[in-house]
This record gives sequence, structure tokens and C-alpha cells, in this order.
Amino acid sequence: MTSRLPVGARTRLGPGDDAAVVSTPDGQVVATTDLLVDGRHFRRDWSTPYDVGRKAAAQNLADVAAMGAVPTALLVGLAAPADLAAFWAERFADGLRDECDLVGAGVVGGDVVRSDALIVAVTALGDLEGRTPVTRAGAKPGDVIAFVGRLGWAAAGLATLSRGFRSPRAVVDAHRRPEPQYAQGPIAATSGATSMIDVSDGLVADLGHVARASEVCIELRSAAMPVATELSRVGDALAVDPMTWVLGGGDDHAFVATFPSSGDVPPGWTTIGEVVPIRSAAEGPCVRVDEKPYTTGGYDHFA
Amino acid sequence: MTSRLPVGARTRLGPGDDAAVVSTPDGQVVATTDLLVDGRHFRRDWSTPYDVGRKAAAQNLADVAAMGAVPTALLVGLAAPADLAAFWAERFADGLRDECDLVGAGVVGGDVVRSDALIVAVTALGDLEGRTPVTRAGAKPGDVIAFVGRLGWAAAGLATLSRGFRSPRAVVDAHRRPEPQYAQGPIAATSGATSMIDVSDGLVADLGHVARASEVCIELRSAAMPVATELSRVGDALAVDPMTWVLGGGDDHAFVATFPSSGDVPPGWTTIGEVVPIRSAAEGPCVRVDEKPYTTGGYDHFA
Repeated sequence: MTSRLPVGARTRLGPGDDAAVVSTPDGQVVATTDLLVDGRHFRRDWSTPYDVGRKAAAQNLADVAAMGAVPTALLVGLAAPADLAAFWAERFADGLRDECDLVGAGVVGGDVVRSDALIVAVTALGDLEGRTPVTRAGAKPGDVIAFVGRLGWAAAGLATLSRGFRSPRAVVDAHRRPEPQYAQGPIAATSGATSMIDVSDGLVADLGHVARASEVCIELRSAAMPVATELSRVGDALAVDPMTWVLGGGDDHAFVATFPSSGDVPPGWTTIGEVVPIRSAAEGPCVRVDEKPYTTGGYDHFA
Repeated sequence: MTSRLPVGARTRLGPGDDAAVVSTPDGQVVATTDLLVDGRHFRRDWSTPYDVGRKAAAQNLADVAAMGAVPTALLVGLAAPADLAAFWAERFADGLRDECDLVGAGVVGGDVVRSDALIVAVTALGDLEGRTPVTRAGAKPGDVIAFVGRLGWAAAGLATLSRGFRSPRAVVDAHRRPEPQYAQGPIAATSGATSMIDVSDGLVADLGHVARASEVCIELRSAAMPVATELSRVGDALAVDPMTWVLGGGDDHAFVATFPSSGDVPPGWTTIGEVVPIRSAAEGPCVRVDEKPYTTGGYDHFA
């Protein structure tokens, strides 16, 4: 597998030793880790091994970018059944490589072990280039809320596959391979974002994390949220209001951030609401859509 | 779990955001990752959850130290069955904490997901404090070979448990919770070690990695290798030559390194052999014990 993986511009020592060494010019490193379980985070009958490699890399690289950092390196663990085809591991590695190549990151280390279950463990590292990390905790009343990327596409794709369909291809592919706009994380940080998160659980659920960490309420305007023609068409076919995917669907890894004023919102981002103070101690931090509570929430891993 | 975990002196931003931030004062970070699979790398009837936490942390922290670095941070993924007792996860976290506290590392991030199999994924980061990493590739003919730590104890403990015994406690505990001498990694680096590895697969197997990476042969003298009274006693009871554990047993995470001369070997290390040139292209890099090839080897994950 190692021969298929990218080296990365920041890699001083790659795979093959007890540990790797990655350069961190500004004296700090961003780090995040995620597990993907076969049958839960991906299905081998719905996603190719290449798709799984792309997705496993993407969701971790997006977490790094959502701090305002440039991803530099991945470490990848693969727990695999003894009968997993070598082909599967090779195409998985190809997927890791192609996603890493989008940002110049290297795969610097890993571990392959035998297991009854197929599980992928990815750790991503990143470089803030001297910037202060943009956390979930900095949103302030008066800030505007904006996002960049897709909302609801992966959820529409998952709904499509769950009903036994394989098309439309655009939404199915969005489920299989998210397309985070990695460069927008650092751009938002440079533009003065006061908080940022990548949308992995769902827009409202993830803004709920921001609301709680920042101790604010968040007011969204549904009229400001684009519902793409593709989503409307899938919604019609499946008798689902596509706005439930836009507000509740995860896994597209859009970035949503708060900015001090609308003048700070970078080009390409869409403003969808604003930050307001908590209105009562009883209600606490909240996310409201069109001035009503919205509680569908995102994905609960142990529900 | 998070409330039970140590913060770490180098942690700028701990768990709870999209990613953590760890300081890296010398502009580089050491990183390594390992997976531990229930029933393969640990058994829940042999090891407590606390033991598994200690061991999962230890084997990754040891990999960092074997580069000559001080461990600074862990990221921990836990894939767990829905019916895993909360107690298990809590005691596992306690084990992570106590092992991290030995070196001052923090647990800065993680992920908990549901899975049929119980799998632990650990990534460790470390600080070289400006030193050049000590890899497997620097051994030169004329160097002396020395180790620090235990050899064969964990293997004797595993053999004991495998035969249905629970004592002697010293070797069984060595299997459950390795005790790497973390500080000796940076000490060896400062003392001029030309190569270093932590013994996880077995002394001969791991020195085989050094021999191949350095393109040398390694001559070990069995008379120089201490066989502890505990190992001899277990060997007598189980009718096993304890030297097979010393040479072939892994999981104690001793450090073995090569030094330019015996005067460079740090206090507390035991010299056990020397590096010699490859004798023939046909033989290639090799590890010999008492001038004979030794091929028992270590653990093959897909054997």
C-alpha cells in the first residue's frame, strides 16, 4: 500500500520507522482522528474501496481545515478481515492518495491489523501557518452566519441508496465522496471568522455545538438557504421535503462560520442567519429556523 | 470519558472541537498510530479495561520515544459494541490517563463509534526538542548494540496465561501492562545513538528491521543477555527455553539502539552485540546469535 500513497510536502520522515516526522513551521500542530466502521459509516455494496479511501481522508482533512488550518499529513489504520481482497486495500489507498493530493498532504504512517470487522481509523495533522485556531466557541451576538459547500446532498444520496435506487448520480456520488472546499477553511480564518465548524452531523446539529460552546443563540433563515434543483427532484421522487436534508443532513462537510459583519464574509460563502443573545436561562443556547425551534438534530452515534 | 483524561503540558486546545492544537516548539512533530483488536492484541478475560488503556497508550508512546522524542499527546478512537459497559470505557480512560501521566502527555482528541468489534486506535505525537530523529537506518559496522528495558517478560506472561495459569504475577502483569522506559529514548538520542527501535515484534525480528534499513548484519551474544530468575522459573514450569522469549518475544517495548562505541552507551543499558558488514550479497542483511542465523522471528500479523 505504501508505494501508492503520497509523500506530502511537509513530510520529513514517512512510513516505515517507529514513527513519522512532519514539519510544523509555526510551532503548533492541528490533530484530529475519526473511525469509520463498515456497515455503519460506509457500505461495501454502496461504495467502492476507492470511495471509502476518499471519504475517510476527506472527513478528517475537513476537520483540520475547519480550524483554519492547511492539512499536512494523515496516519491511517486499517483493521481488515483476513479474506479482504488485496484489490480492496489497493483501491482504498488510491482513494486516500487522490484526496490527499487535493491539499498536498502526505500519508506518513499507518498500521494494518487483522480483525473480524473492517474498520478504518484516520488521524489528520495540519498547519495553522501562524493563525489562531478558529474554534466553536467564538461566536458573538451580532455576528452573521455563512456557509460554503454543499448542504443536504449526501443525505439525499443516502436516502436514494436506502430506497434501493442508484441514481441520480449527483446525489449518490455526494454521499460516496464528499467534496469539502478545503481552501475555504484558512480563507475564513484569514477573513476574521469568530467561530467555525465542518458540517458532519447536520447543519442545525453542528450549529448547536457552536451555540453551546459560544453560549449564544443562532437564528437561521430558510429562505436564504439554497435548495438545489437536484435535491428538489430527489425530494419529489421520494416524497421528502428537501429542506430536511439541508438542515439535518450530515456528511457533506460544508464549512459554516460566523463573521463579525457581512463585509467579512468571503466570496463564495452564503449568509444564512445571525447570532443573537440567549433569550432566557431556561431555553439556553439554541438554534432556531425562521424564529421557531428546530430539533431534528443530527446523527446520534449510540441512538 | 473526557473528564478522566489528562490535559498535557503541550496542549493548546484539547478535545471538543473539530481538531486539537498541540504546541511543537522545534518546528516538527513525531507521529505514529496503532490499532489494537479485542481477541487479538488483548483479551478481555485476561486484561482489565484499565490494563488495555495502559497498554494501548504505552505501545504508541514507546514508538515516539524510540525516535528520540518526548511524547506530548494522544488521540484515541474507540469502536465499541453497543452493550459495552460504561465501566469498561471509564476504566480504559483511567488506564490511558495513568500511562500518559508518566510522560506528561495529554489526550487531546478522540472518536467513539459503535461497532460489532471492540477496537482501539491510538495516535501518539511527540517532541524531538530539536534533536534529529533516530531511525532504523543509521547503524554502521563497528557500532555496538545495547538495550534498556525488559526482554521476554511479556512473552513469558502470555505463555503463562495461554496455559491457563494466572501467576507468577510478575510476568502476567508484564504482558498486561508493558513498562517502557520512556526517558531512555531521548537519552539514547542525546548519547549519539545511530539507530533505535522499540522491541514490539521481538528482539531478533526488530533488529532485522534495523539490519535491513541500515544494510548491515547484527551479531548478538546470548551470553550477554540477561535471563531473569522469573523467566527461568516460568521456563522450567512450562518446559520452554526462556531464551526463546528473550530473543523472540515482543510487547515489552524495550528500546534497542546502536552506538558508535561502548563509551557512548548510556548508564542502565546492556551491551549485547555489535554491527558488522553484510558478508555476502546472497545472505544480505542479517541477525545472528552466537554466530549462527536465528530465524524464529516475531509476530506476523497475517500469518
